[in-house]
Amino acid sequence: MTITEKILAAHADKKEISAGELINAKVDLILANDITAPIAIQEFKKIGAKNVFDKDRVAFIPDHFTPQKDIKAAEQCKLLRDFSKEYHLGLYFEIGRMGIEHALLPEQGLVVPGDLVIGADSHTCTYGALGAFATGVGSTDVAAAMATGECWFKVPESMKFIYYGRLNKWVGGKDLILYTIGDIGVDGALYRAMEFEGETIRNLPMHSRLTMCNMAIEAGGKSGIIVPDSITEEYVKDRAKRPYKFYISDSDAKYVEIREYDCSKIPLTVACPHLPSNTKPASELSHITIDQVVIGSCTNGRLEDLREAAQVIKGRKVNPNIRMIVIPATQQIYKDAMKEGLIDIFIDAEAVVSTPTCGPCLGGHMGILAKGERAIATTNRNFVGRMGHPESEVYLSNPAVAAASAVLGRIGVPEELGL
Amino acid sequence: MTITEKILAAHADKKEISAGELINAKVDLILANDITAPIAIQEFKKIGAKNVFDKDRVAFIPDHFTPQKDIKAAEQCKLLRDFSKEYHLGLYFEIGRMGIEHALLPEQGLVVPGDLVIGADSHTCTYGALGAFATGVGSTDVAAAMATGECWFKVPESMKFIYYGRLNKWVGGKDLILYTIGDIGVDGALYRAMEFEGETIRNLPMHSRLTMCNMAIEAGGKSGIIVPDSITEEYVKDRAKRPYKFYISDSDAKYVEIREYDCSKIPLTVACPHLPSNTKPASELSHITIDQVVIGSCTNGRLEDLREAAQVIKGRKVNPNIRMIVIPATQQIYKDAMKEGLIDIFIDAEAVVSTPTCGPCLGGHMGILAKGERAIATTNRNFVGRMGHPESEVYLSNPAVAAASAVLGRIGVPEELGL
Repeated sequence: MTITEKILAAHADKKEISAGELINAKVDLILANDITAPIAIQEFKKIGAKNVFDKDRVAFIPDHFTPQKDIKAAEQCKLLRDFSKEYHLGLYFEIGRMGIEHALLPEQGLVVPGDLVIGADSHTCTYGALGAFATGVGSTDVAAAMATGECWFKVPESMKFIYYGRLNKWVGGKDLILYTIGDIGVDGALYRAMEFEGETIRNLPMHSRLTMCNMAIEAGGKSGIIVPDSITEEYVKDRAKRPYKFYISDSDAKYVEIREYDCSKIPLTVACPHLPSNTKPASELSHITIDQVVIGSCTNGRLEDLREAAQVIKGRKVNPNIRMIVIPATQQIYKDAMKEGLIDIFIDAEAVVSTPTCGPCLGGHMGILAKGERAIATTNRNFVGRMGHPESEVYLSNPAVAAASAVLGRIGVPEELGL
Repeated sequence: MTITEKILAAHADKKEISAGELINAKVDLILANDITAPIAIQEFKKIGAKNVFDKDRVAFIPDHFTPQKDIKAAEQCKLLRDFSKEYHLGLYFEIGRMGIEHALLPEQGLVVPGDLVIGADSHTCTYGALGAFATGVGSTDVAAAMATGECWFKVPESMKFIYYGRLNKWVGGKDLILYTIGDIGVDGALYRAMEFEGETIRNLPMHSRLTMCNMAIEAGGKSGIIVPDSITEEYVKDRAKRPYKFYISDSDAKYVEIREYDCSKIPLTVACPHLPSNTKPASELSHITIDQVVIGSCTNGRLEDLREAAQVIKGRKVNPNIRMIVIPATQQIYKDAMKEGLIDIFIDAEAVVSTPTCGPCLGGHMGILAKGERAIATTNRNFVGRMGHPESEVYLSNPAVAAASAVLGRIGVPEELGL
């Protein structure tokens, strides 16, 4: 069995399962945010549920339109807060105590290897980086799971992606996943578990693994997953709030497709409008002028991402034509970045530094584009109108490319700054 | 003549003027923000103006709905940006390079003593603290002044407020002005120049003077003003970007009304919903539970305000029922606060720290209230629905009271925390 099948089997109390099978499985953690929890709450009450199955396994994280953007956002957040009080949820994260859900939960050791996690947010697949099965589901499924502690799944086929060879300078997890999506397309892994492996992955730091699994959904994947190893152990050992288990794919596990990538041939990669699969080498886009740069989101708002951007921007200024917005993904990252002097670097460069929020990534707030404006962002989607006006454009990149572009006033690479 | 009459006379090229007279006067600086500049720009183009009278005396500061809250805000900001480029404005402040207009312009020495300043924002009166005549006007007046460098005024009557006696602990400029507005009402100084003086004012630090003059409009005042002195000189000498002049009221100047306040009798003061004049001693409001605390705005978002709040919150936690939002008023204040460790104190206390914006003060974004929610804020207005839902409530206070309330979960004073 693959790691995915093993985790699902263990949570369904089965010895063997195979792709395509419909199962009911116990979930270790359920999450929802200020957009999706209100619907889940409504459905939860509609089915007449008296209590949540486990008050310490339902996480409500108001991160999308917070700090409360408008009255509607405030009312949505109030629903989460009131429900959390009424049902004594142990994992309600108020603004000021939180961060972007998919950065916060791994950081706080609230998702662990071997977990089965569902979330009413498509980027729940992020946690696959820890060797967990994690997937986005609808608010109705979340409601039922909140009541029963279980959820139904069709066991996904697994698709293996093998990465070998040395990464080029400044190339990281974001480039690998963008390149991969560019290769297979936004439906290239439809309802499949994307298993990332190979020597490059084995050497890939956790923040880059999280970025890769985060974007599995952008290729249509049901989940992304990386078999846990010593890097996983190092990341979770002092964080894990629950016991954890490393599952490993068998050598005879079945994969519906296997693809291999020579990483030495993967360039700094940018996804052009309006699909994450519309990728080009960053170096071929130097004619694209931009108006805004966003460094943040559940994809690339971690400390290492800020370090990378700061390394490029240090001692430089954001181009006068550019608005650069930096959003640490959690309060802890914000604090750590401050301690390391990264926030100082960004402010000296004349960037905006915001409190943690999903904000502009989904066109929520905190950096919305006007008609005809163009952004390069470390976020995960560049669909039409994703960051604002339907006639605006979003280019996706890693933090170093985004930061270099902020200085250059157009899409560019760190090399152009002598880095 | 009063200081106000002298400044107006000088700018109208007259030797003598008196209250009630209609004059045309040269302006030293004109400002507008992302709400008001678009209308001014439209009117400016409508009157067929070819150029602004002086490209270095028109300041456009997008601070209200920035970082761009939504598509409409983005479009508004784009109008400012495009106009600033087209007319080569020297004082356009993009996000990341800016702050709240009324904090930014004095900080950067762009308004100076003796100035005549108009702004398409009611709190333009803030600059009276520097011994300038400054007042809010409509966007149409701004448009005309942008073209001609002049504006019409009806010379206001002056009203004198004399403060004497020692301030009680934690009592500052915010308490003095709230107490005064409570005394005279929200129309108590209608179209008058409010001249603040007396021994207490002479010892009052600049940040408190700015807070007092900022809220002159809340008593209906045309302006607030303080005769410049050594504290003014100390504040402006290294900042002033233009030559400045100290005007002083004559001993025989005419005041339509004089009021005196014994500051030793002025308590920590809170304005209750829904008027700034609905004041009560903070100590009498300990039964009022709250949901949100806001420290910021053009009224109380300066470094000294953050210091005061940090002094109260240091080593403590924001009450679990409270969302505390701290908004440094400018990038410089943000940076200075970081250097002093204040931002660390706020984050450790579990407060949100935002990039500079007017945000929640005007119900813009970044902390909007749901139905039935209640906030205590260091802002300037508590009208119905000011911070969100028409059935939400805002209490106004100084930063120390707001911070103490954040810890207590209800309105309270620092004394209750042993401070």
